[in-house]
Amino acid sequence: MRDLAIAALQRDYRAGLKPAELLAELRARIAAHAEHRAWITLLDDRQLAPVLAGLEGQGPDTLPLFGVPFAIKDNIDLAGVPTTAACPDFAYTPAHSATVVQRLLDAGAIPLGKTNLDQFATGLVGTRSPYGAARNAFDAAYISGGSSAGSAVALALGEVSFSLGTDTAGSGRVPAAFNNLLGIKPTRGRWSTAGVVPACRSLDCPSLFALNPEDARRVGAVMDGLDAASPWSRRGRAVSGPLQGLRLGVPREDQLEFFGDAAYAALYRQAVQRWQALGAEAVALDFAPFSDAARLLYEGSWVAERRHATQGVSPDSMLPVIRQVLAKGEGMDAVATFDGFYRLQALKQAADAALAGVDAVLTPTAPTHYRLAELEAEPLLLNSRLGTYTNFMNLLDYAAVAVPAGMTPAGLPFGITLFGPAWSDDYLLALAQRWMAADPRPTGRGASRWEPVAPTPPPGRIEVAVCGAHLSGMPLNPQLTGRGAFRVAATHSAPCYRLIALAGGPPFRPGMIRDAERGAAIEVEVWSVPEAEFGSFVAGIPAPLGIGKLELADGRWVSGFICEPAGEAGARDITHLGGWRAYVREIASSR
Amino acid sequence: MRDLAIAALQRDYRAGLKPAELLAELRARIAAHAEHRAWITLLDDRQLAPVLAGLEGQGPDTLPLFGVPFAIKDNIDLAGVPTTAACPDFAYTPAHSATVVQRLLDAGAIPLGKTNLDQFATGLVGTRSPYGAARNAFDAAYISGGSSAGSAVALALGEVSFSLGTDTAGSGRVPAAFNNLLGIKPTRGRWSTAGVVPACRSLDCPSLFALNPEDARRVGAVMDGLDAASPWSRRGRAVSGPLQGLRLGVPREDQLEFFGDAAYAALYRQAVQRWQALGAEAVALDFAPFSDAARLLYEGSWVAERRHATQGVSPDSMLPVIRQVLAKGEGMDAVATFDGFYRLQALKQAADAALAGVDAVLTPTAPTHYRLAELEAEPLLLNSRLGTYTNFMNLLDYAAVAVPAGMTPAGLPFGITLFGPAWSDDYLLALAQRWMAADPRPTGRGASRWEPVAPTPPPGRIEVAVCGAHLSGMPLNPQLTGRGAFRVAATHSAPCYRLIALAGGPPFRPGMIRDAERGAAIEVEVWSVPEAEFGSFVAGIPAPLGIGKLELADGRWVSGFICEPAGEAGARDITHLGGWRAYVREIASSR
Repeated sequence: MRDLAIAALQRDYRAGLKPAELLAELRARIAAHAEHRAWITLLDDRQLAPVLAGLEGQGPDTLPLFGVPFAIKDNIDLAGVPTTAACPDFAYTPAHSATVVQRLLDAGAIPLGKTNLDQFATGLVGTRSPYGAARNAFDAAYISGGSSAGSAVALALGEVSFSLGTDTAGSGRVPAAFNNLLGIKPTRGRWSTAGVVPACRSLDCPSLFALNPEDARRVGAVMDGLDAASPWSRRGRAVSGPLQGLRLGVPREDQLEFFGDAAYAALYRQAVQRWQALGAEAVALDFAPFSDAARLLYEGSWVAERRHATQGVSPDSMLPVIRQVLAKGEGMDAVATFDGFYRLQALKQAADAALAGVDAVLTPTAPTHYRLAELEAEPLLLNSRLGTYTNFMNLLDYAAVAVPAGMTPAGLPFGITLFGPAWSDDYLLALAQRWMAADPRPTGRGASRWEPVAPTPPPGRIEVAVCGAHLSGMPLNPQLTGRGAFRVAATHSAPCYRLIALAGGPPFRPGMIRDAERGAAIEVEVWSVPEAEFGSFVAGIPAPLGIGKLELADGRWVSGFICEPAGEAGARDITHLGGWRAYVREIASSR
Repeated sequence: MRDLAIAALQRDYRAGLKPAELLAELRARIAAHAEHRAWITLLDDRQLAPVLAGLEGQGPDTLPLFGVPFAIKDNIDLAGVPTTAACPDFAYTPAHSATVVQRLLDAGAIPLGKTNLDQFATGLVGTRSPYGAARNAFDAAYISGGSSAGSAVALALGEVSFSLGTDTAGSGRVPAAFNNLLGIKPTRGRWSTAGVVPACRSLDCPSLFALNPEDARRVGAVMDGLDAASPWSRRGRAVSGPLQGLRLGVPREDQLEFFGDAAYAALYRQAVQRWQALGAEAVALDFAPFSDAARLLYEGSWVAERRHATQGVSPDSMLPVIRQVLAKGEGMDAVATFDGFYRLQALKQAADAALAGVDAVLTPTAPTHYRLAELEAEPLLLNSRLGTYTNFMNLLDYAAVAVPAGMTPAGLPFGITLFGPAWSDDYLLALAQRWMAADPRPTGRGASRWEPVAPTPPPGRIEVAVCGAHLSGMPLNPQLTGRGAFRVAATHSAPCYRLIALAGGPPFRPGMIRDAERGAAIEVEVWSVPEAEFGSFVAGIPAPLGIGKLELADGRWVSGFICEPAGEAGARDITHLGGWRAYVREIASSR
């Protein structure tokens, strides 16, 4: 079976594969798995002809997603194809594609069709559809997860290279967990919602299912960018953290909830241990503010918002279960909506404070996994349980990445979620990459075997080599720690620097002078500083020092302290000591 | 009459003034102006005794607001003194002071009492109070403006050094304009609302009336800081812009509204011209998104929020006009509240886009000024007109500063407002300082004569001297302009630098070597770079160059390009050319 990961597909295209051949293969595959109910509408040859015509004369070198097949959740518009939101009475045929879809088409991706979902994206199960209950890619007796059910199942079954979902309560993460996929829940406003049927308009996000972190990064970059057609579209400064030695928040042991699922509980504990083995520190958090916020989503104010989105739809056109959920939003007084908003504001303050103490939080994505038969017996209760670790995310304005994390003894997938503040998207994906690279396994049903590349350095940070009063424990070190910097390495410079003790002080300061003939390897530390904080650090350094580039022992060049020639005046050469700490010891003992 | 500006008062304290003496003076002054109805409660000797006791042994050098008298709007708690919100039936006596008040007390400020306001801070007029209509400090026939009426009047009459208001719709700015004061409407969440009676809880801000920009900065800094007791308390990165050559947005001519007030219209046009004379470029903006957002505040969703704040208060306890305003918030359906939120979101996107094209926006603070008699005849309509340029500010999450801007022929004050995005507070205050320093006039009723200090450089920016490929028009200049930098000066270095053309290239690069003996004054440009962008600029500079400190011709040291000694290898000394442009011309002509 063909590996549909984008890099693998590009290799195939370069080796001569034609998009039309690929389409034929995929349609056969889709037909063979029809019982999974992943699709609502599949595009026919006539509908795909203009897409294929647009790819002629192009290739993977000219279009970032040349010939990459993808699926679109059927609450996102594709021009000329009905959008049903899994409610036939609601269906309409849009003249324009959603902004995110159009950007993917422009990048050369091929839309295979529209996928099944919980009606109006209201549900985490994938069973609430008049087009049939979507079935898990691993075991058709199990739920797919929802609401972005078909998009996850189609990707896991090897029918597309990536797929679009939406995520208001967890719809882009729960199905990722149940189908062994990456599920990217972006920061709200990062990807435009123009052309997406609203569920809870102020909270909705398009989401992305991908086979590996590189694909997620590549597809995400195509969808990025402000969109004047979406009032919630926005841009922000990237928030980042370390890949090594990170502080990973975990819910307090007594607040973990698996509803009796021992396999999930064991796999989660294993995941925490594996992160610890990767050098992370697990920090227990009071999870109450997160759980309390999660409960707000289906009580009061936001149910009224959900009802707002379907104001034009007669309750008779809805599935009974959807009607039942939305009824809670009716007849509520406007004044009372603010109770919910204020409660959320207070919870967000507490949750933000907890988040500020860690680099990211690690939870299960879902607490357990149900069979379709179980769901049928208790449709509301079991659905609500599935949102335990997801419902709060958009309410609190956080970003999240759901990542595969092993298999239960029954052969069903388990997934973890990493989350952080708005605009931590790239950092979370870098963490997901680190996690997956440490133990590479196939994703989806197994046809995609990702070969991890070197870990990407955290975005939005700058590494700077320091050699004097900024070293750990030295007087100026707080200038680094106070800016949210952390130490990456204690190492040496390349063996071509002289170290001099500048005239004047205190504070006593060294200078490093690049000198191939008389230089040596000098003790330095490398610190990772948030990019936005680095400028003020640099501006605070008095002459004759400054920040230029320094060569490390391993041959890498990083930002580092340099010294003007004028600094040599009255200075003492201390190269032979090999570092500033030795000099400080010397002057201390000579007093 | 004593100048109550903080610096003047500190001089008096250093010269021997005692707080108790000052209090006696101020009480006499307050008694003489009782007809202005500025106060609801004045603290008596017994209440002030512990405050005065706390100041013993202290002075202006130990407490930043030692002995500085201030007034508190009577919807902000002062421990042990009733908070009425201008509704006697609502009154309660708080055990704790509001967070902002407590911080001022801790800094040594003396609270004289609680001031009159439009009931529940609902109004922009100052007449809606059972404690009597507050009267303008300049002409008792005119309204004071509201809702922070008494706080403005007391300050303008020379009864305190600064005063606290609150500002939801313009309550901290309109009274500033009508009483010749600075009115600081901070970014929402900058100053804690804990201990403030809510008007529209998600929008409320404490506000500050001050006599001059330095006082505003000093008092503001005391109130700054996160507060766990206020869910809306937050912190953000400062947004800044240039003081010279700024782009100042102004409403399109046909969108300006003065309701027939020719004096206000003329004074506003004069203010625009004065800003142009100060080097600002006036950029006409489509003001519709701002005006449309302003109208939302008293229609629908936010009136329901206003009603939420007074849920426990019987309508019979309210003034009829307040009852009438709040009645619009009753009986509205929860689903419909989202109409308002979505409309605002769309308007904010348009308004933000307009704001992104300018450094700040300049409007009148109020479109006109009414007599009490006029207000009595048309209490709702005339009140609503006063919010033309203020109502949108908190809805759109902007910061604003109201600044005095001249007098009408009738001898009444006119004011302008400068506004910008959230966290532009410091920048706006720096602009206000520039404006007031260009034509220093007394504020309030005239007893405070501010002596302007040198303009403060815009906060959150770093000046960097460049000497080579980063100069205007040179190949690497986009590395500056692309980071939002602007040129501050074309000048020379101090006469002690050699200029060398480094080996290698293109790009060809110079180095500056500090050398008192053989150096000269070298042509440089000084650029102002946003602090958050400076780090990535520095990190992009290859060896042997870097950023250290450079001495300018005027003796100032700014960040600037420095060069490692290793850069001298193979370099050519071009000091005699006086600058990089001359060298570039020379090599171009020699080809």
